[in-house]
Amino acid sequence: MALTLAFFQRWWSEKSPTIQAIVHSWVVSGQLEFINGGWCMHDEAAVHYIDMIDQTTLGHRMIKKQFNKTPRAGWQIDPFGHSAVQAYLLGAELGFDSVHFARIDYQDRATRKADKGLEVIWRGSRTFGSSSQIFTNAFLSIIAPPNGFSFEVLAEDAIPVQDDLSLFDYNVQERVNDFVAAAIAQANVTRTNHIMWTMGDDFNYQYAESWFRNMDKLIQHVNKFTSHALVFGILLTPAKMYIFKLRKKVKCTNGRVHALYSTPSIYTDAKHASNESWPVKYDDYFPYADSTNAYWTGYFTSRPTFKRYVRLYSGYYLAARQIEFLVGRSSLGLFTSSLEDAMGIAQHHDAVSGTAKQHTTDDYSKRIALGASKVERGVNTALTCLTSSNGTCVSSVVKFSQCPLLNISYCPSTEEAISATKRLVLVAYNPLGWDRSDFIRIPVNDGNLVVKSSDGSIIESQLVEVDNVTFNLRKFYVKAYLGISTDKPPKYWLTFEASVPPMGWNSYFISRPTGAVLGMSTTAVFPSYDTIGVGPGPLKMSFSSESGQLKRIFNSISGVDLPIQQSFLWYRSSEGDTADSQASGAYIFRPDGNTPTTISSPVPLKVTRGPLVDEVHQQFSSWIYQITRLYKNKEHVEVEYTVGPIPVDDDVGKEIITRLTANMVTNRTFYTDSNGRDFLKRIRNYREDWDLQVTQPVAGNYYPVNLGVYIADGKYELSVLVDRAVGASSIQDGQLEIMLHRRILKDDSRGVVGPLDEVVCVDQDCQGLTARGTYYVNVEKLGHGSHWRRTYGQQAYSPFLLAFSNEDETSSKSYTVAKATMMDANYSLPDNVAIVTLQNLDDGTTLLRLAHLFQAGEDPVYSVVAKVDLKKVFGKRTIKELTETNLSANQKKSEMKKLNWRVVGDTESGPTPIKGGPVDSEALVVELGPMEIRTFLLKF
Amino acid sequence: MALTLAFFQRWWSEKSPTIQAIVHSWVVSGQLEFINGGWCMHDEAAVHYIDMIDQTTLGHRMIKKQFNKTPRAGWQIDPFGHSAVQAYLLGAELGFDSVHFARIDYQDRATRKADKGLEVIWRGSRTFGSSSQIFTNAFLSIIAPPNGFSFEVLAEDAIPVQDDLSLFDYNVQERVNDFVAAAIAQANVTRTNHIMWTMGDDFNYQYAESWFRNMDKLIQHVNKFTSHALVFGILLTPAKMYIFKLRKKVKCTNGRVHALYSTPSIYTDAKHASNESWPVKYDDYFPYADSTNAYWTGYFTSRPTFKRYVRLYSGYYLAARQIEFLVGRSSLGLFTSSLEDAMGIAQHHDAVSGTAKQHTTDDYSKRIALGASKVERGVNTALTCLTSSNGTCVSSVVKFSQCPLLNISYCPSTEEAISATKRLVLVAYNPLGWDRSDFIRIPVNDGNLVVKSSDGSIIESQLVEVDNVTFNLRKFYVKAYLGISTDKPPKYWLTFEASVPPMGWNSYFISRPTGAVLGMSTTAVFPSYDTIGVGPGPLKMSFSSESGQLKRIFNSISGVDLPIQQSFLWYRSSEGDTADSQASGAYIFRPDGNTPTTISSPVPLKVTRGPLVDEVHQQFSSWIYQITRLYKNKEHVEVEYTVGPIPVDDDVGKEIITRLTANMVTNRTFYTDSNGRDFLKRIRNYREDWDLQVTQPVAGNYYPVNLGVYIADGKYELSVLVDRAVGASSIQDGQLEIMLHRRILKDDSRGVVGPLDEVVCVDQDCQGLTARGTYYVNVEKLGHGSHWRRTYGQQAYSPFLLAFSNEDETSSKSYTVAKATMMDANYSLPDNVAIVTLQNLDDGTTLLRLAHLFQAGEDPVYSVVAKVDLKKVFGKRTIKELTETNLSANQKKSEMKKLNWRVVGDTESGPTPIKGGPVDSEALVVELGPMEIRTFLLKF
Repeated sequence: MALTLAFFQRWWSEKSPTIQAIVHSWVVSGQLEFINGGWCMHDEAAVHYIDMIDQTTLGHRMIKKQFNKTPRAGWQIDPFGHSAVQAYLLGAELGFDSVHFARIDYQDRATRKADKGLEVIWRGSRTFGSSSQIFTNAFLSIIAPPNGFSFEVLAEDAIPVQDDLSLFDYNVQERVNDFVAAAIAQANVTRTNHIMWTMGDDFNYQYAESWFRNMDKLIQHVNKFTSHALVFGILLTPAKMYIFKLRKKVKCTNGRVHALYSTPSIYTDAKHASNESWPVKYDDYFPYADSTNAYWTGYFTSRPTFKRYVRLYSGYYLAARQIEFLVGRSSLGLFTSSLEDAMGIAQHHDAVSGTAKQHTTDDYSKRIALGASKVERGVNTALTCLTSSNGTCVSSVVKFSQCPLLNISYCPSTEEAISATKRLVLVAYNPLGWDRSDFIRIPVNDGNLVVKSSDGSIIESQLVEVDNVTFNLRKFYVKAYLGISTDKPPKYWLTFEASVPPMGWNSYFISRPTGAVLGMSTTAVFPSYDTIGVGPGPLKMSFSSESGQLKRIFNSISGVDLPIQQSFLWYRSSEGDTADSQASGAYIFRPDGNTPTTISSPVPLKVTRGPLVDEVHQQFSSWIYQITRLYKNKEHVEVEYTVGPIPVDDDVGKEIITRLTANMVTNRTFYTDSNGRDFLKRIRNYREDWDLQVTQPVAGNYYPVNLGVYIADGKYELSVLVDRAVGASSIQDGQLEIMLHRRILKDDSRGVVGPLDEVVCVDQDCQGLTARGTYYVNVEKLGHGSHWRRTYGQQAYSPFLLAFSNEDETSSKSYTVAKATMMDANYSLPDNVAIVTLQNLDDGTTLLRLAHLFQAGEDPVYSVVAKVDLKKVFGKRTIKELTETNLSANQKKSEMKKLNWRVVGDTESGPTPIKGGPVDSEALVVELGPMEIRTFLLKF
Repeated sequence: MALTLAFFQRWWSEKSPTIQAIVHSWVVSGQLEFINGGWCMHDEAAVHYIDMIDQTTLGHRMIKKQFNKTPRAGWQIDPFGHSAVQAYLLGAELGFDSVHFARIDYQDRATRKADKGLEVIWRGSRTFGSSSQIFTNAFLSIIAPPNGFSFEVLAEDAIPVQDDLSLFDYNVQERVNDFVAAAIAQANVTRTNHIMWTMGDDFNYQYAESWFRNMDKLIQHVNKFTSHALVFGILLTPAKMYIFKLRKKVKCTNGRVHALYSTPSIYTDAKHASNESWPVKYDDYFPYADSTNAYWTGYFTSRPTFKRYVRLYSGYYLAARQIEFLVGRSSLGLFTSSLEDAMGIAQHHDAVSGTAKQHTTDDYSKRIALGASKVERGVNTALTCLTSSNGTCVSSVVKFSQCPLLNISYCPSTEEAISATKRLVLVAYNPLGWDRSDFIRIPVNDGNLVVKSSDGSIIESQLVEVDNVTFNLRKFYVKAYLGISTDKPPKYWLTFEASVPPMGWNSYFISRPTGAVLGMSTTAVFPSYDTIGVGPGPLKMSFSSESGQLKRIFNSISGVDLPIQQSFLWYRSSEGDTADSQASGAYIFRPDGNTPTTISSPVPLKVTRGPLVDEVHQQFSSWIYQITRLYKNKEHVEVEYTVGPIPVDDDVGKEIITRLTANMVTNRTFYTDSNGRDFLKRIRNYREDWDLQVTQPVAGNYYPVNLGVYIADGKYELSVLVDRAVGASSIQDGQLEIMLHRRILKDDSRGVVGPLDEVVCVDQDCQGLTARGTYYVNVEKLGHGSHWRRTYGQQAYSPFLLAFSNEDETSSKSYTVAKATMMDANYSLPDNVAIVTLQNLDDGTTLLRLAHLFQAGEDPVYSVVAKVDLKKVFGKRTIKELTETNLSANQKKSEMKKLNWRVVGDTESGPTPIKGGPVDSEALVVELGPMEIRTFLLKF
């Protein structure tokens, strides 16, 4: 846990004007400094970059508004590993000079201590190199001050400084000696004469006086008595807070140890002023291990449904804010702000990480649910306005409803009886900047329906029976989450393809056919031959009809043809052993043995075919169900898995993976994304920064995945995209494995204080949590995978936002605006650009962020400068004023300052970064270089 | 532990003038109130009344000096039972209106709750009755606030008041309801509409903000929302501190619950203003039990050597302050103040009580030792001045030394070789107001010595060989305490009778005889007949020569002849049982079975006889040694016991008693003193205030003893006086038992967190602690015991202060003042008066306390008004000004205010209290009624 701006804000809001004025004066004088300044100290493994940006922006703008300050230092003291995106995007691009943290791999730390390399210049982006670098300070050890210098009031090991000579325990000389010894020890592994002590720890400062008093005394006596080597002690206090109070200060003179209260910014300035050369660090600090068998790679997957919940509302939030923008600054107000606090704190490194206690996690979920329901209401109202002809927005008139539990076939609006006079209206909003066609699946109770598009024509649709696993999930979870007993499950999934313009919507009308039923058919096929092929379009898969095993994927257009198998397996969670009591847990993945157990092979198949989609249903075990879907015109496979309740009757914790085994020679190499943005190269059992001692051949090769993971050989790229944060690896060449779910019976002793044993109850009936999710598989020829990964990745993050209405067939005229786009007709963003933020702010401005989606050199076509014509993007609206800012929009881009750093043996490699030039205020065309994100404040 | 003024003073002294000024203004406004105001919150069972007065005076005068305030309320929230002396002397006589505490017997509490009798008017003194009564508030339960209203920052069960409607855990209505329910529940067992909540507990207020914030909110909301019965809630905060901060206040109107911050004084005033009638309570609240098997009667004896150490220096301190007064306000300064802090805190209810952890107890001892060594040095210098002719006092010239380890025969000065030219000088100071003859015993190495008095005449002396038990004690403990190896033990105890005038000294000269050796002889007698009688004077004892058992005591003058036996026994300390896990421990005495085990009978006798003293040596076991001494002209027996190391090889904790069994019909009745002052009647298995359910027939009948215990039948009184605080009882008619030592292997779960297993180490050699002590036995005819108890009790408390010097025989002329008294020649105090304080204060005044030693009706001769002629007491000094004050000398007696209280069915019984009238400033004769203590500030 760390104090976040969310907590500061709560504290601040209830303070008297007197206290607020005092605090304000400290901020003005520099005595009190905000660092990091996000709404929370976000995680770096399980978070999406858009969420990182959002929550940081929320905090930074609050600080700017209340204190007129822009934080200068990153403070990621606690997250369990550190991402490339954190360094360059949530660091350099925010305008930070430095980032500070405690947790790096124990082997890495040992190497860096030996080389005086704990402090580095970190170039997190291979695309940007030195143009987005940051001074990085990894601590000598974990968070706490040196031994003996914690002054927490009830700590057993606290040794107060006693400087009253009349008391028995006078100990100034010993304490000064200990201080100097600890300072010198640290100085010996640190470049320059400046060192930093972080005076604090988790749950400390219960009684701040005991810290400040002792530190006051230490500073006084150390500076008076010592005459040692050139060491300049800097005390930071308190650790893990974003707020630093600056107090005394002593100059380093005459070769003595000098101690002073300081801040990360002062420290960084001192480091910078020393003119030292620093080692360069590339990529990231994953995975993190604190000892031989303690790889913190379990949390990449821990609490998979909470991770999905956060990701779901991340995408939803983006779409809702667009709709809020579209409807204009009306009486609806900024309804999407109901989610900003909840989404902000959910990014915390003990929230979306899955490492909070159960009741804390429940609280995070509750906050999101409450916020989301308000935003949903706002969206329903806004869509009512947008689709109405008169254009007036009355918050009391709401035509629409939405279905957050659609994934388990619960949607009262679509399940409602459709009659001769009553039809179902579906509005699909497309938050992407591109035209888009996607398949929609809704539960219905009627096999005799037609789907009409907004121009009145009937479009092709298909029915698929709802399977029993979904029936049961629906029954249990609708009762658990909504308290509603659902005795009548819907019979079918109705599937059709919707086409929606960029940042716009389209409406579909589902009704009983007036004539004969047309074109709706689904055939269940049970395998009868050796091999069964599925896929209504160019992409096909073949399965063994005997074992149910997937055999190959082939694409008749690209000619790709890859032998591949898929299976579910589980690692047995270690409970510790005689050599090391470390157990697997919420944070740590420690398998008991490195060979997972395969779940149920052969697996019977049930295949349903239709004009739009073929589905392969497979029950791998009583608790694993999988549906593989191939759509008629998609070049990827959609795999929906339902895992759980993971059985633990045998008292064995289990960590479930899905594994793809392809016939590829991948040379230990695989690629994973950094927070959904850059793809980083991973080599099994290898670290670029040190000579890795392999102690955990599985857990030590897991990496966090938010967008996707892929492998490549000389011919093909096999890519998997995910719908939430997961841990993934490639433990054998040609293999990809993704951890989907974990149920563990021991605590891993890192703070949760309880096993990761998620349970859902209906009255007295408690079950282990079931996780349902989707991943997407694509095979392309080598060098051609990125376009799908980038564009479909964006679609997976930003699905259609669906709203429903039931109405009389006769009232169709109310749909005066059944289809529309914000942009100029026929305009859309280029494939390599996405709008990652469009948000009305409370000061009347609108925040716009455009992101280039490709890295330098990633794609021959798309890794180039892209242009966005803002006039066309905003169609009828006129931009009166445009200001480019830093990433968190708390300072003008033109006013950002940057420190220059000397590095050891600087031979910058890689492409020269290309960035877009200034935006002409007349032309309003924005250029974006590869990976560039540009942030603007607009006035219309 | 409770915050004491000692701690406040430490805190205060390091505060800035700004903070001091703020605190001062709070005190002036009444927002901050000092209650109790002693240097600590003293114990009430194991403390002597003189120590109680001293430590309270120290605190009260400090508060008066720094804040010009006189505390009005007693606050004994934590002590484990409450004494009669506390009520009337350290309550009413201080000028307190009320006393408040948490701990009373659980059965008593239940009865009082049923009768609304927790609050009473307490008349602790049978002599003074209503003239020294106090309003007494025993809490509804132990210390803490009602369940759910603790707001300690880290407490698991704290339920903060959440009044921010925007937060999930808004709970104002529930919290208000709980508050009102708890207030009404308390109001239902309380007289008047005023109740008190003690908002705090041990170790609470680590972060005071969490308390004050929640209390602020409760007060605000309770006063806003409620409309319940007539209850007037008073919040006290924080409990167990002597300082109360007054904040908001709300009036009781319209039948609503009103909560406010308050103080004990405000509470008491409200109670007083209600004009209610209160039950009357007599005597004391001992013993205290908190449950069936948890009688807090073990601590009456726990840590017997520490208790002795405190008592030893209590008497010593009194004598040293007299010497300081005698030597005058010279350059020596107020050297006795070196002990005031150490002796003050040693009276704490977790100090002298024996219930502190070992290291805390060690710290208490260390502080006393350091202070005592400074006072000793001051006394040595002062005696040098006083015995010198020129009268000049130079602190660098010190002739004398003292021997604190005399009881184990360690005294370098007396052990030094006495030669033809070198003699030993012994100065005996008598702190009593009476002429006095007592026997002195000093270790010497020479069998050939004469003792001369200050007039040069040889006086009778006697040598007794030092026994082996003392040899071994001396060797081990001198090494343990002083780090000195003592290979040569002294051969003899040299005994002689010294006669010293009141508040004066006499010198004795020990040298080698110039002629033949006179009158020194000791005969060791081994029993040979059936019965052996001992005693060189009128008092005789007879022992069975076969069993070694004492058979009778008889006195040839008084004709008393009492069959009596004596034995050592031990109770097995309970470790808890299946029915109740309560173990015996530092606080609690819980024997495992109510029949103790007798230690070694028969016991061989070794008798030594001489002209001055007969001694009976008995080794009861390898770890119990006893010497019974009968002096030639004393009418009591002196019994020196050496108990320890108590063996625990059998893993059994043991609690050692000595038991006297006399042939007396005592009708369940015995008498014990209250803090060394009033004797209270105790009846076995009976309580005056409620119908006792006997669950612990031994432990439940133990009472604290500081002066003595006695039983009586129709003929005789059998009395025992003690040299320290002990627990004692009479478990069978005719019996008296005193617990002497305890060694226990379990913790009793009341806060020590560790067994009472005292160990002393020399290097690696650790032994269980050995306790050596003395008790005195006297038998008188019925109605004649009190004179001995009172006067010899005073002697036992105030023994001769002995100082030694070795000097050339020729320099005897330096003893120009070898004998002197402060008083007029031939004047001495009457037998029923003692000077309990004579102390130079730092403001130039002298504090004098005179105490009448007899209760009303206790003695036909001495329970009358006594007169003290101050002019004669102070001899050559002239009293210029005399001011009578309250007991703690922080206010003039004439200005003391007293509240009148109505009581239920007031039929005052007992004698009308007699008190002395005002002191005529010319005559300067002080009258003292029975038990009266009068306090004066004098200027000379």
